[in-house]
Amino acid sequence: MAKELKDLTKRSVDYSRWYNELVVKAELAEQADVRGCMVIKPYGYAIWERIQQSLDAMFKETGVQNVYFPMLIPKSFLSREAEHVEGFAKECAVVTHYRLKANPDGDGVVVDPAAKLEEELIIRPTSETTIWNTYKKWIHSWRDLPLLYNQWCNVMRWEMRTRLFLRTSEFLWQEGHTAHATKQEAEERAKQMLKVYADFAEKYLALPVVQGVKSETERFAGALDTYTIEAMMQDGKALQSGTSHFLGQNFGRAFGVQFVNKENQLEYAWATSWGVSTRLMGALIMTHSDDNGLVLPPHLAPIQVVIVPIYKTDEDLEKLNTRLREIETELRKRGIRVKYDNADNKRPGFKFADYELKGVPVRLVMGARDLEEGTIELMRRDTLEKETRAAEGIEDYVEKLLEEIQQNIYCKAKTFLDEHIYECSDYEEFKTRVKDGGFFLCPWDGTAETEARIKEETQATIRCVPFGVSQENPGTDMVSGQPAKYRVLIARAY
Amino acid sequence: MAKELKDLTKRSVDYSRWYNELVVKAELAEQADVRGCMVIKPYGYAIWERIQQSLDAMFKETGVQNVYFPMLIPKSFLSREAEHVEGFAKECAVVTHYRLKANPDGDGVVVDPAAKLEEELIIRPTSETTIWNTYKKWIHSWRDLPLLYNQWCNVMRWEMRTRLFLRTSEFLWQEGHTAHATKQEAEERAKQMLKVYADFAEKYLALPVVQGVKSETERFAGALDTYTIEAMMQDGKALQSGTSHFLGQNFGRAFGVQFVNKENQLEYAWATSWGVSTRLMGALIMTHSDDNGLVLPPHLAPIQVVIVPIYKTDEDLEKLNTRLREIETELRKRGIRVKYDNADNKRPGFKFADYELKGVPVRLVMGARDLEEGTIELMRRDTLEKETRAAEGIEDYVEKLLEEIQQNIYCKAKTFLDEHIYECSDYEEFKTRVKDGGFFLCPWDGTAETEARIKEETQATIRCVPFGVSQENPGTDMVSGQPAKYRVLIARAY
Repeated sequence: MAKELKDLTKRSVDYSRWYNELVVKAELAEQADVRGCMVIKPYGYAIWERIQQSLDAMFKETGVQNVYFPMLIPKSFLSREAEHVEGFAKECAVVTHYRLKANPDGDGVVVDPAAKLEEELIIRPTSETTIWNTYKKWIHSWRDLPLLYNQWCNVMRWEMRTRLFLRTSEFLWQEGHTAHATKQEAEERAKQMLKVYADFAEKYLALPVVQGVKSETERFAGALDTYTIEAMMQDGKALQSGTSHFLGQNFGRAFGVQFVNKENQLEYAWATSWGVSTRLMGALIMTHSDDNGLVLPPHLAPIQVVIVPIYKTDEDLEKLNTRLREIETELRKRGIRVKYDNADNKRPGFKFADYELKGVPVRLVMGARDLEEGTIELMRRDTLEKETRAAEGIEDYVEKLLEEIQQNIYCKAKTFLDEHIYECSDYEEFKTRVKDGGFFLCPWDGTAETEARIKEETQATIRCVPFGVSQENPGTDMVSGQPAKYRVLIARAY
Repeated sequence: MAKELKDLTKRSVDYSRWYNELVVKAELAEQADVRGCMVIKPYGYAIWERIQQSLDAMFKETGVQNVYFPMLIPKSFLSREAEHVEGFAKECAVVTHYRLKANPDGDGVVVDPAAKLEEELIIRPTSETTIWNTYKKWIHSWRDLPLLYNQWCNVMRWEMRTRLFLRTSEFLWQEGHTAHATKQEAEERAKQMLKVYADFAEKYLALPVVQGVKSETERFAGALDTYTIEAMMQDGKALQSGTSHFLGQNFGRAFGVQFVNKENQLEYAWATSWGVSTRLMGALIMTHSDDNGLVLPPHLAPIQVVIVPIYKTDEDLEKLNTRLREIETELRKRGIRVKYDNADNKRPGFKFADYELKGVPVRLVMGARDLEEGTIELMRRDTLEKETRAAEGIEDYVEKLLEEIQQNIYCKAKTFLDEHIYECSDYEEFKTRVKDGGFFLCPWDGTAETEARIKEETQATIRCVPFGVSQENPGTDMVSGQPAKYRVLIARAY
């Protein structure tokens, strides 16, 4: 086994270190030279591209179009919506000057004090403010509505503690911003986009999620309701994987976006916004991978099948090349992403370990004897099971197997999630058990005080009021002893 | 004809105003609230997405992979390469703080002076410096080479005079950054990527270009050679549409990127970089469009065919819907992007003018009488020609016609380009004629002095030493009277 692999910390030893090492060793990303930022490497970016393409197609099916708004936002825009500025002011990168000049006192360059901006600009932490200031020009009548726009871009939120993909100062994401003529339509859109996220997570990331609505404390700054999908990592912690916000008329009002409605009256436009980010990469990695490295869902794997010949002589290699190139071609015809690796500067054992580390779903290996006997060895990454099969017809088998693997890793994650959701209405029990991870379905009195106390005493937070859970007779709040208003999911989270 | 169209300034009246108006009226982009930046609207972004997808596929065919590097660059990185800092320092947006706080003296937020960065960060104007500082960690041996990476991202160059798409402070682009073990390989890659740009321009943008190499004055800051594609706009001015740079060992040396070569000796890595930007949108618009609006090449048009029914009664509409939806479906099956517009809140005349303005290549119109007679009216946007044809089999005809239109607008632009390249070796003649536009093939003595004088006296610049033009006996420099070193193309440019 290759050296790199031996070095990968086991999950059971230190889950957090395992993750950090895996991201780097699998060549997904690394720390950049700028504090808190990351470099996304080719293999990581190839996964992100598939996420983008798949999700983008799903957005477009719902009528969404892409646009691009500037990354710099006048400082004053941020203050227009009171809660919004509260939420983001503390983590804004601020542009104050627009020129450098040669250092008069020595080497290098310095900021040119003559090039100070009249009003500082911030790098977008999210774009509601600049977009709604523009929507003012685009929206006049109910006939102009809805606007269903999205952008794929970078954003910046100055973070003190960062982790690759999970929390970085700069990250890549999409942000959808819609404007509607009625409250109902906006609320429906916010929920619709959450469903798109949940479907995408399930079908592509093989990620089961809990859908629900955030508590007031955990809402997006400026939202009336924040809907969320929450995934469970292998350590039982929650990872908020996507959010969709019903913004009411807050931004419409803050930016004066009024329209003439069907009743011929002036009304503020209704808004939603919704986003997922490169954080999804973190969810993907942490949910499925194992002590040997990444396990990638076939629908997103940049390489779905790797084919490796094993040979001693050039003559053997030549024969193997001929047969294996046929298989490669057949797989490609089926739209499967294949890599044929007959490089002679690496031993097969090294290649095997490397493709395991990189999470390639299916490995095909053929040696001289296989060729004679018409067989081929197949290894599936999710279970690490090997089998030898007839080479004839292997393409059909692989095509089906890829779907089976996609299903299997989803089911495995779903079983894990289901097995780690506990009902709990005793705070002492909760305090003990929450340390081991899992989602706890608990009665909550709906007060911010109780919520704060739970967070302070257990580092766990209310993840959401989950959909599909009966809210009738929620019982007694486990902390305050007051009548509960909701059953909520509580967990420690990334 | 719709009001908007009547308002479009004619090219012959004011070409520059025509362009500015067209970009806004066709809803491609508009000025943002932040000085010098733009909002790219859905229709404009849909074209940019097609540019991205097509070009990205061409990059990948040459072995290039996508990555993502941070948008912020430590100020000191910029100074490492002497010419580079010279070229970019004057237009850098500078981040100096990372937090805002409530204004102690009143409303809103102010920059928190306690959150001053130790070292200022600049928003990337281009990413050679940060990428090469990272390549240092990735390159140790010739076995690590080549690196063939590209990123699609936003960049910022503070511009004083901006124009939508052509010159904006923030713009979208791709920047490729490759590292090689040999000078020859790097030079070949730089030329290869220029050819990719030229092929892309021809096949997708229908844009004929002149390929060549820049004079030393016009080179990218830090390059040994800058290759360029130059397009000609309808006013005869040049638009630099893409550049590819051979950077030699400049960045390898500046950032200490050394590797052990095949001879087991330490050597600095060889570099290229290459980019095209949203400026291509400007080239696309200015090259083909006319007084009625955009003319889009079918390969990039978001809507390739629009179908409009003309009806008086609901009964007519119903029948037309049935027939036209069949045609729509058939066209879609062929992979053609179709819009069926039977909206009843706009008159046909308005629709026609709007789709002309938006440059939809083919329009199909059917009325009740057409339906009876089995005919359909077809209009092609490039020539504005109308014809009535049998509706049966129209799909095959349209499929071929789209290719014909693509060819036709390319040929038209190519003829225009060819007819406006003049040989000229008399400076007085040049000074008179250059005002009317066109590319002038002139003998040049190769000195920066002559180049500067031409620029000062005529506002024209040396666009390139064009490939495929004989450089034997270039004659006598038309300005200095000295023996010429090259035949160069000179033109006024955007």
